[in-house]
Amino acid sequence: MPSYTAPVDDVLFLLNDVFHIERQNNLPGFADATPDVVEAILVESGKLCSEVLVPLNARGDVQGCTRHDDGRVTTPDGFKEAYKQLVEGGWVGLSSPVEYGGQGLPATLTVIVNEFLASSNLAFSMYSGLVQGAVAAILAHASDELKMKFLPKMVEGTWAGTMNLTEPHCGTDLGLLRTKAVKQPDGSYKISGTKIFISGGEQDITENIIHLVLARIEGAPAGTKGISLFIVPKMLVNDDGSLGAKNGVSCGSIEHKMGIHGNSTCVMNYDQATGYLIGTENKGLNAMFVMMNEARLGVGVQGLALSEVAYQNAVTYAKERLQGRALTGAKFPDKPADPIIVHPDVRRTLLTIRAFNEAARAFVIWTSLFGDISHRSSDAKEKQHADDLMGLLTPVLKGVLTDIGFANAVNAQQMYGGHGYIREWGMEQFVRDARIPMIYEGANGIQALDLVGRKLPKDGGRALQAFFAEVQGFLNDHKDDAGLKPYLAGVNASLGHLQQATMWFMQNAMAKPDNAGAGATDYMHLFGLVVLGYMWLRIVKAANEKLAAGAAGREDALKNKLIVAKFFVERMLPETGAHLARIQAGAGSVMELEMEGF
Amino acid sequence: MPSYTAPVDDVLFLLNDVFHIERQNNLPGFADATPDVVEAILVESGKLCSEVLVPLNARGDVQGCTRHDDGRVTTPDGFKEAYKQLVEGGWVGLSSPVEYGGQGLPATLTVIVNEFLASSNLAFSMYSGLVQGAVAAILAHASDELKMKFLPKMVEGTWAGTMNLTEPHCGTDLGLLRTKAVKQPDGSYKISGTKIFISGGEQDITENIIHLVLARIEGAPAGTKGISLFIVPKMLVNDDGSLGAKNGVSCGSIEHKMGIHGNSTCVMNYDQATGYLIGTENKGLNAMFVMMNEARLGVGVQGLALSEVAYQNAVTYAKERLQGRALTGAKFPDKPADPIIVHPDVRRTLLTIRAFNEAARAFVIWTSLFGDISHRSSDAKEKQHADDLMGLLTPVLKGVLTDIGFANAVNAQQMYGGHGYIREWGMEQFVRDARIPMIYEGANGIQALDLVGRKLPKDGGRALQAFFAEVQGFLNDHKDDAGLKPYLAGVNASLGHLQQATMWFMQNAMAKPDNAGAGATDYMHLFGLVVLGYMWLRIVKAANEKLAAGAAGREDALKNKLIVAKFFVERMLPETGAHLARIQAGAGSVMELEMEGF
Repeated sequence: MPSYTAPVDDVLFLLNDVFHIERQNNLPGFADATPDVVEAILVESGKLCSEVLVPLNARGDVQGCTRHDDGRVTTPDGFKEAYKQLVEGGWVGLSSPVEYGGQGLPATLTVIVNEFLASSNLAFSMYSGLVQGAVAAILAHASDELKMKFLPKMVEGTWAGTMNLTEPHCGTDLGLLRTKAVKQPDGSYKISGTKIFISGGEQDITENIIHLVLARIEGAPAGTKGISLFIVPKMLVNDDGSLGAKNGVSCGSIEHKMGIHGNSTCVMNYDQATGYLIGTENKGLNAMFVMMNEARLGVGVQGLALSEVAYQNAVTYAKERLQGRALTGAKFPDKPADPIIVHPDVRRTLLTIRAFNEAARAFVIWTSLFGDISHRSSDAKEKQHADDLMGLLTPVLKGVLTDIGFANAVNAQQMYGGHGYIREWGMEQFVRDARIPMIYEGANGIQALDLVGRKLPKDGGRALQAFFAEVQGFLNDHKDDAGLKPYLAGVNASLGHLQQATMWFMQNAMAKPDNAGAGATDYMHLFGLVVLGYMWLRIVKAANEKLAAGAAGREDALKNKLIVAKFFVERMLPETGAHLARIQAGAGSVMELEMEGF
Repeated sequence: MPSYTAPVDDVLFLLNDVFHIERQNNLPGFADATPDVVEAILVESGKLCSEVLVPLNARGDVQGCTRHDDGRVTTPDGFKEAYKQLVEGGWVGLSSPVEYGGQGLPATLTVIVNEFLASSNLAFSMYSGLVQGAVAAILAHASDELKMKFLPKMVEGTWAGTMNLTEPHCGTDLGLLRTKAVKQPDGSYKISGTKIFISGGEQDITENIIHLVLARIEGAPAGTKGISLFIVPKMLVNDDGSLGAKNGVSCGSIEHKMGIHGNSTCVMNYDQATGYLIGTENKGLNAMFVMMNEARLGVGVQGLALSEVAYQNAVTYAKERLQGRALTGAKFPDKPADPIIVHPDVRRTLLTIRAFNEAARAFVIWTSLFGDISHRSSDAKEKQHADDLMGLLTPVLKGVLTDIGFANAVNAQQMYGGHGYIREWGMEQFVRDARIPMIYEGANGIQALDLVGRKLPKDGGRALQAFFAEVQGFLNDHKDDAGLKPYLAGVNASLGHLQQATMWFMQNAMAKPDNAGAGATDYMHLFGLVVLGYMWLRIVKAANEKLAAGAAGREDALKNKLIVAKFFVERMLPETGAHLARIQAGAGSVMELEMEGF
């Protein structure tokens, strides 16, 4: 049975020593996040995770969700009670506005707590994660009336939220969607259609579910320009806030999935369901994108989360499993064999995971802080800068963290040998669960296209220039820093590869967009490696500073950062050259084969 | 529901045009494998696969195997009947010696048919695959008496076979094994102990199961030098060949696994079971290694097999799924959207799989032919050369084909978007099934160590030199071949990387073996890419020759080979530089972290 310990010390180091969140204390909510408060939040949420959610994870996988003939859906035993604890702890609305009952703390803290939740029990964590996304969309675009009606209970967590985009014939290409909305005399709409893959579409853990639904208003233009976003509550809400009649929405079936069995993935049927327009008619995609950006960040975090919990368990196993002897002679001659962690190939595998995890966590916090600044700053320039970088980094974070997170779950499983393939050990569940973040909230190929096709050229490349300036600036500022020296050349080389790749796109993809499409995924991963390399530089710098200042009791942990950073530079950055070569190969052989030839 | 068509044309091209098997007609059995016979074998086995085994695959996954209270195990509905068809078709003993009832055809043909079987239904194919391995071990090491007693029914397929190595505390490190054997006055042994992860350990599809069991004879030396190999039949066999009493072996439980649910993975309890020594006391590992080499080749083929069937289905979906428009403008303006195969990133993904599959199939056939030569040639020099290369290539084939095969199943699943995560579409089963070949028959890290630690230095590096000579010779011989020109530089560069890596090991790993351990997996994958690149050169050469000779009706298929080869060189070979860099990084950061630091 796997276990999990929230990486509280690592997060504190990142928040306090690497990113110095106290420097953001001018932003609303940040001053309340004192070091003590933050530590208490991390410790308490970590405890909830280890003690309550971890034990429910394997059980939820085996038991799954059940749809009954009347359309009700039952979640696994214990989920309802655990969710109650989540609500009672105020975890759902940790970063939501105080006026709607939230605690108003930095969204970065919610992102971090969500990593812990997803490590412990991904399927469970999706129920609360989705309501946070729905809250974001409502906050950004809905009328005050709708906000007052729906947000308090959602922020509290007693009502859940869902995202309804996909239809059987339309996923990525939302322009094809057919769900219809017909305006009623009272200003509401009647929504009819079928949505699929709706996570938590029906469940028994909250008293109401607020569905956000994309639909086409009668007479609206075809394609993406005729899509509107609606609130469609499962139970209608009376003016006094009490629950009214059941709305015309029901779960038609639940999917049998590879993983995340504890989360109900529903086909939702809307039959003349009452809905309320969010924002402006036909501008639904804009409103939904707010939710999707939050969600994409959250999904990227899931990749890290599964990589982290898989790593922790693989380490435990590698220290306990006795098999063979070290290549350099027995390390534990009194035992029948050495623990397998003595073997270089086992260490290489574990370090591959860890060198990703620690930098990925920094990447997540770095990006989340841009999100907080973007939403909370009153300085227009600072806001724009943060918004630019948040927009640029989000597809990289989603695509890279979920691709590598999955690969790492597979790597960790491999450490168990045959036992990794057996359900009771729990590692194969991590792999199955880690597979979905690569797909949902925009499959990773779409993230790559978003990065290359939209985010790079946006505003004349302003965001990318800001990113290059930041990394290049750091490299310039620290070129004589002896403590950083072993790391600088590698990151510099990889940054050079990214710049060359960007230049290549500028020269070759304008006239021939297939050249961008054929290189998009490699570009995304190349970008990700540069970001992770830059995060390692920031971490090394902070570790060196802290060591120089005398970090009582933390020396070993900080020195280990320096070793893992070296591993990253030596073993993971060389990949950027291969990405560049593939990008520069262009679309030739990719597009040459006739469709019939496949 | 996935479908599958055996790649008969591709195999015929490889056998006839790339590897010219008719040149081996001096070997026993090869002259019988006339082009007509081979084609009939491929077509007929392909038909059995598509029509009988494919429909059982998803059902077997859902239903799984059941152990009853009395220890009996039931396989999924239809498996028993399908197995009967396999036996009646003579497929199990296709390449077994005629004197034991086999057809004596090249083992290469069995390897190919096994690819088809594994593509169709991996769980099912393991039942017949394991008996072939057991036959190989008995043929190589058992007495004539044991051969006569057990082989005819095994070759026929009416008795199955299993491999019993692993115990709860011992997998890779067989020196730790505890299963005991006590010699009896009649020359037989009483075997007692527990074995785990025994594929097909108990089932209801054959009337008897011949277990090959590693055990330690009372008083034998500790470690690997005291291990012997035994035949332990499930049902004792009377002198007249009829079945006697039940032996003291039973299935204690079956495992709940990530995939291959249709194959029963058993805990086997041996309680004073009657066993017969194979070969010499305490030389069991040698005898077992015969079986393991065959098995490792077979497992590598499974990686290819799942990559192939996943590719075929991903292509079908990519041609049918309408979503978005081509970057260069609508390709099917009359449809609501273009099929996703117009997108460069989709094509890149599909070609990544295909560029592997076609070269991997060549790699398999190339290696299998060495196996045939090694077993059947009467020319000592030719035999040794074949044996050297077979030994060198087997760990590469097993490790690389299963790692990439799994990655490709994941890639193919990704093409389905959310549907790829849903059981009904069948893609997620391919991923779960494709995961096990990376683990069993020696986890891939062990393959890498076998390659670097054993196969490279063996006989003063004779095998490696033979490999380098062959590839370098080909490059030299064809350096002015215009048709090969676009491909030579890439393969030459990657071969150079492999040679540099080898040199680096020679200079740095003798004194410090951790340098070899830390680079072993990268070396294996670097080696694999060079082999696949070499295979593409052989394929391109054959395709060019055939095109020049006028290949009626095959022109498109052959021209496609040239395109896919280009994709391989441009997109997959650049990885060798990254592998080299990682190898040359050495063991430093890998070994530096204290065990407590993990």
